[in-house]
Amino acid sequence: MTNRALRIGLVGYGFMGRAHSNAYKRVNDFFDLQYRPVLKAVCGRNRDNLEQFGAQWGYESIEADWTALVRRPDIDVIDIASPNHTHAEIASAAASAGKIVLCEKPLARDLTDAARMVEAVEYARVPNMVWYNYRRVPAVTLAKQLIDEGRLGRIFHYRTKFLQDWTMSRDLPQGGQALWRLDAEAAGSGVTGDLLAHCIDTAIWLNGPVHQVTATTETFIKERRHQKSGQVEPVRIDDASAFLARFDNGCLGTFEATRFARGHKALYTFEVNGESGSLAWDLHDLHRLQFFDHRDESKLRGWRSIHVTDGDHPYMSHWWVPGLQIGYEHTFIHQMADFLQSIASGTPITPSFRDALATEKVTSAVLKSARSGKWEVCN
Amino acid sequence: MTNRALRIGLVGYGFMGRAHSNAYKRVNDFFDLQYRPVLKAVCGRNRDNLEQFGAQWGYESIEADWTALVRRPDIDVIDIASPNHTHAEIASAAASAGKIVLCEKPLARDLTDAARMVEAVEYARVPNMVWYNYRRVPAVTLAKQLIDEGRLGRIFHYRTKFLQDWTMSRDLPQGGQALWRLDAEAAGSGVTGDLLAHCIDTAIWLNGPVHQVTATTETFIKERRHQKSGQVEPVRIDDASAFLARFDNGCLGTFEATRFARGHKALYTFEVNGESGSLAWDLHDLHRLQFFDHRDESKLRGWRSIHVTDGDHPYMSHWWVPGLQIGYEHTFIHQMADFLQSIASGTPITPSFRDALATEKVTSAVLKSARSGKWEVCN
Amino acid sequence: MTNRALRIGLVGYGFMGRAHSNAYKRVNDFFDLQYRPVLKAVCGRNRDNLEQFGAQWGYESIEADWTALVRRPDIDVIDIASPNHTHAEIASAAASAGKIVLCEKPLARDLTDAARMVEAVEYARVPNMVWYNYRRVPAVTLAKQLIDEGRLGRIFHYRTKFLQDWTMSRDLPQGGQALWRLDAEAAGSGVTGDLLAHCIDTAIWLNGPVHQVTATTETFIKERRHQKSGQVEPVRIDDASAFLARFDNGCLGTFEATRFARGHKALYTFEVNGESGSLAWDLHDLHRLQFFDHRDESKLRGWRSIHVTDGDHPYMSHWWVPGLQIGYEHTFIHQMADFLQSIASGTPITPSFRDALATEKVTSAVLKSARSGKWEVCN
Amino acid sequence: MTNRALRIGLVGYGFMGRAHSNAYKRVNDFFDLQYRPVLKAVCGRNRDNLEQFGAQWGYESIEADWTALVRRPDIDVIDIASPNHTHAEIASAAASAGKIVLCEKPLARDLTDAARMVEAVEYARVPNMVWYNYRRVPAVTLAKQLIDEGRLGRIFHYRTKFLQDWTMSRDLPQGGQALWRLDAEAAGSGVTGDLLAHCIDTAIWLNGPVHQVTATTETFIKERRHQKSGQVEPVRIDDASAFLARFDNGCLGTFEATRFARGHKALYTFEVNGESGSLAWDLHDLHRLQFFDHRDESKLRGWRSIHVTDGDHPYMSHWWVPGLQIGYEHTFIHQMADFLQSIASGTPITPSFRDALATEKVTSAVLKSARSGKWEVCN
Repeated sequence: MTNRALRIGLVGYGFMGRAHSNAYKRVNDFFDLQYRPVLKAVCGRNRDNLEQFGAQWGYESIEADWTALVRRPDIDVIDIASPNHTHAEIASAAASAGKIVLCEKPLARDLTDAARMVEAVEYARVPNMVWYNYRRVPAVTLAKQLIDEGRLGRIFHYRTKFLQDWTMSRDLPQGGQALWRLDAEAAGSGVTGDLLAHCIDTAIWLNGPVHQVTATTETFIKERRHQKSGQVEPVRIDDASAFLARFDNGCLGTFEATRFARGHKALYTFEVNGESGSLAWDLHDLHRLQFFDHRDESKLRGWRSIHVTDGDHPYMSHWWVPGLQIGYEHTFIHQMADFLQSIASGTPITPSFRDALATEKVTSAVLKSARSGKWEVCN
Repeated sequence: MTNRALRIGLVGYGFMGRAHSNAYKRVNDFFDLQYRPVLKAVCGRNRDNLEQFGAQWGYESIEADWTALVRRPDIDVIDIASPNHTHAEIASAAASAGKIVLCEKPLARDLTDAARMVEAVEYARVPNMVWYNYRRVPAVTLAKQLIDEGRLGRIFHYRTKFLQDWTMSRDLPQGGQALWRLDAEAAGSGVTGDLLAHCIDTAIWLNGPVHQVTATTETFIKERRHQKSGQVEPVRIDDASAFLARFDNGCLGTFEATRFARGHKALYTFEVNGESGSLAWDLHDLHRLQFFDHRDESKLRGWRSIHVTDGDHPYMSHWWVPGLQIGYEHTFIHQMADFLQSIASGTPITPSFRDALATEKVTSAVLKSARSGKWEVCN
Repeated sequence: MTNRALRIGLVGYGFMGRAHSNAYKRVNDFFDLQYRPVLKAVCGRNRDNLEQFGAQWGYESIEADWTALVRRPDIDVIDIASPNHTHAEIASAAASAGKIVLCEKPLARDLTDAARMVEAVEYARVPNMVWYNYRRVPAVTLAKQLIDEGRLGRIFHYRTKFLQDWTMSRDLPQGGQALWRLDAEAAGSGVTGDLLAHCIDTAIWLNGPVHQVTATTETFIKERRHQKSGQVEPVRIDDASAFLARFDNGCLGTFEATRFARGHKALYTFEVNGESGSLAWDLHDLHRLQFFDHRDESKLRGWRSIHVTDGDHPYMSHWWVPGLQIGYEHTFIHQMADFLQSIASGTPITPSFRDALATEKVTSAVLKSARSGKWEVCN
Repeated sequence: MTNRALRIGLVGYGFMGRAHSNAYKRVNDFFDLQYRPVLKAVCGRNRDNLEQFGAQWGYESIEADWTALVRRPDIDVIDIASPNHTHAEIASAAASAGKIVLCEKPLARDLTDAARMVEAVEYARVPNMVWYNYRRVPAVTLAKQLIDEGRLGRIFHYRTKFLQDWTMSRDLPQGGQALWRLDAEAAGSGVTGDLLAHCIDTAIWLNGPVHQVTATTETFIKERRHQKSGQVEPVRIDDASAFLARFDNGCLGTFEATRFARGHKALYTFEVNGESGSLAWDLHDLHRLQFFDHRDESKLRGWRSIHVTDGDHPYMSHWWVPGLQIGYEHTFIHQMADFLQSIASGTPITPSFRDALATEKVTSAVLKSARSGKWEVCN
């Protein structure tokens, strides 16, 4: 293949660092593209871990300081996969340096940071993208197609939740490398920014803007040992968050996320009910889309379980044969393929930083409503 | 069988009149009881329909006027299965006449009426019961047992919804015999009193009192022809209703009901997440209970689909053999069996009018919050 | 209702005696019919049990001797619900006495008896019916309609099984009142006549005659205590039975039944694969029919789960409202409703004794093939 | 990583060539291993396609002639992913040249060839492996663990099928590059060698040797245009194949495979019923294992749906986090990881050519029985 190199500088080598690296390495094996990512450098603070990660994934170099990475002339893309509180500064610097900027979700720790990041990339006019990967699950993309084709008609209800159970043990500390998601300083919020953000991004994509919300949050375990101080400290993130929503299109929404739903590992689901049909999906069986078509003959109506693995399903012609599943990691590969095509064509990729800002406005209104006890507008 | 007669006077011969009549006629075939219901009289306003119903179900007589029925000395039980707005007056008169009073849910059209009814039966000291039949689905009763046995530990989340799609057509009128549920005058509210009331009754039974709520309601079709006037009139009932709740035990709740969820006929579901386990149930497959037990060996944990049809499951020893389903109507038979046992033993039956009042307080708070935009306390 | 009495004499008061009695008592509550069954007499050998059963179900009289029952002039219908080895003699005598004859499945203990029974009812020209109740599950009846409408096109595969696990304990004796199904003398065979007979009846109804089979059977527990002798004796019934089949229409079939499939109580399933669609059903969720329609738009094809509870589904307009399940016992009520209509109209009911004979020919060929190790023709 | 190179020469660049290549390229990203596959050469007949494939996947060279490939000193491993009829000759030559030999399933076109291949690798004492990839689905490997731990007790039933619908169109030709599976000359048989071989390999692995079988096969479309001749010719492969089996352990088996089951793309399922538990799995949701444990408390027994995505599940600690699925391609990566470990440790890998020969003996007996109409022994 005579494709051109696109030189990647990755910040962060945790769970998301792996997912992004895998996407870079695999995308050209399955998609014919004009660009090919080259793993130029990975950046992080723990030198031993960093070296091991770089060697395992084949990065050409490592960088201990992200400011050095951002200045390197042999880097085209800065990909931010470090904890939330680092996003704004790195993204702004990278944009100023003229780099393409990719950022793991949520866009930022809070709305102020998020707005600053949008300003930075738009001022610098650099391509930018946020890794809301679930848009590229083939079944979710198919849902988007069906809605855009008008198959559901007017939408009445949007219902979504993201349920986990991995933080239920009292012995789990807050903070530290693996558990920064429990540390309000690093994460900004708990499940609101982590899990609900996914729910909101997909909802806005499928169903348009959220107008206003009424919300509640809860922290079930009030104190945990903090990794930094070694002391038991109050927990400042939300273990659970739920809200009712009004969309601009008149649709009612219910949203819920928690890490205290015993028996669910990563049960992200949504359901959309329209005048002429409904759709439902869940991440635990991500290769299936449930579709109810009211235009079917009356006595034969039922929810269809579509096994989204055929060549005429989104992205699937690039993989195996009908009936054979792909998995979680493929969503990142799809997003990378779309990104590389957007670079080649000069067409903006979605979700951009500005798209992700809309989600930040909703999560911000959710947290505000949880404090005020009132409906809050998302703008 | 040497069981004693309990003479029934039924008010109303619609959908619920049939369900109750069926329970009266079948209960002694399957349960050994000291009492046997005798279908003494059915009461309603349309004489032709009433006569046909009485003949079909074998009622000994018919009554056009419920005040006459209530005065009859040969009646032990007044069973109210007429529209909501008639409940309070009939129940109060029946209680004053010293009758046992059974009432279809919701208890009343509004909280004032409901409180008056509780007062009436308690002042008269007559046995009383509300037909919240879903407590007697064997799978739901089993869920109650497991929670009471402490198998879930501390409860964090309660999640419930009741989704239908039968009023989505614009051509459907409001009011009239079959459609009084769309008429605010007769029904009091829309899905809040009709469907959410079921969700709330079960929730309180399984998880204790609801402390406060924030809610929203919606009427998607704003005008419908009214059967009485023949005119197009504003629709004053809610097509959809959703709320977030705080239970007394610290649990978060999400509740939703609608008649605009295309593809769902009567999808009543609940899920309870506790520290050591979770439960889930849905009315569309009412014979199954989903159970996740965190105490299972780690690598073998999974949601168990319990086919609640064995002899050691609630009520099931009275029916067929393991694996063979019962259905919707059996919930009324179970409730009648429990009721007849309570009469024999002198033990109060649940849910009583007072139990049902707790649900009315929640639906009342829901409707209030939907208007105020604020959290409202349920007391 | 001005319907005419049809006077029933029931032989046997076990599990099937209850199911039939329930059908007799309930059918007129839900179906408008010209005839009404009257429970005239029940017949059995244990006087105490018989009296209790008669009183519980409201039979007007009891009979200890079936020959007396058959001679009674006040009986129109002899319904045989006693063990298999009694069917032939009772049916023949009842037919000779000019009675309508109903018989629980399987028709007889062996092919010779079965043929004799067909001869008896046809010679006497009396209405006759076998209780293969699963034809009247609404979802199964709907499957029949879809096949008859040609929606599946040419049929390639028929796949069915009936899995139970209730005889796996070694401590279970053979024979006696509750366990005659384990006694070859009374039952004729094990799962072949008990469970496979259901599979075969449905298969022939949906897919036409079975031409030939190759089979195997197994008795996993070789000896059990016999209730009669009190001694440990060889078990002569089959615990499991499986066969491959060729249908007259060129379709391939696979059939399997067992009482040694741990985890399945009564998992009777079938699946039919045709050129343009497929159908699947299972008794553990009997209110659902799975339908795959190849004529759906390519990217939206999927198995539809049809919740067969709507007014336009077979039999369902007689019951509740959409979404509310009926259960096992309703299949007998449906068959009784159809039977009473056939008596009123003079149209023969199916399955008749002759229809059931076709199933006997297949079970007979299955047992023969299991012995011979060769393909055997079913004729 | 300081791992050693293992130089791969791949024969064939079709569907399986891609799956194997992907495994080679990804295995070291996710598994810490002493060896690293190096894509030295890919071999095939169509030069253009070959070059494109080689470039896409990063092979260092291409070879038009497999005999040249086998002689190359810079190749350690010959991996055969070409049509069935080529396996024997290539494998024998590779073994004689001292190469490690990997072979896509089925081992060979017929039993004679298969035996010759086993002889060749064993005579040459070269490591050898057949790509029966489904053993390495984590849920299937977990099933194996549970059976080996004795959790099911004595096994009574094994039930398996592989259903597809991709050859149902009459317009599909036989033979040619993409459709050699329809050409008896290249494939040896139809679904028997293609799909049933998978079912049999897993069955033997989980449940031990198959003793004897009675089988039937069918070719529904009797003639298709042949790609080579351009003429309509008789189809000589089986479209469907089914058999009953007796295992050495006394278990009964039912096996079925077809390409004429409308609505199923690749529905490979198995179920095992033992004295104390049962297991079930299906390829359309390959990340789930269904487990019924009879030792659970009686009233709480049910089939557990285990989402096999936790760190303590086979292979899963190498991937993402609990709840996130992997897919089809990962089975090849797992097999490659196990293979590289076996090379490092000197321990033989399974399934070896000899293991695969056992499957060939069963498929051979199946085809023989389908012709003879009798039970045939598999030895």
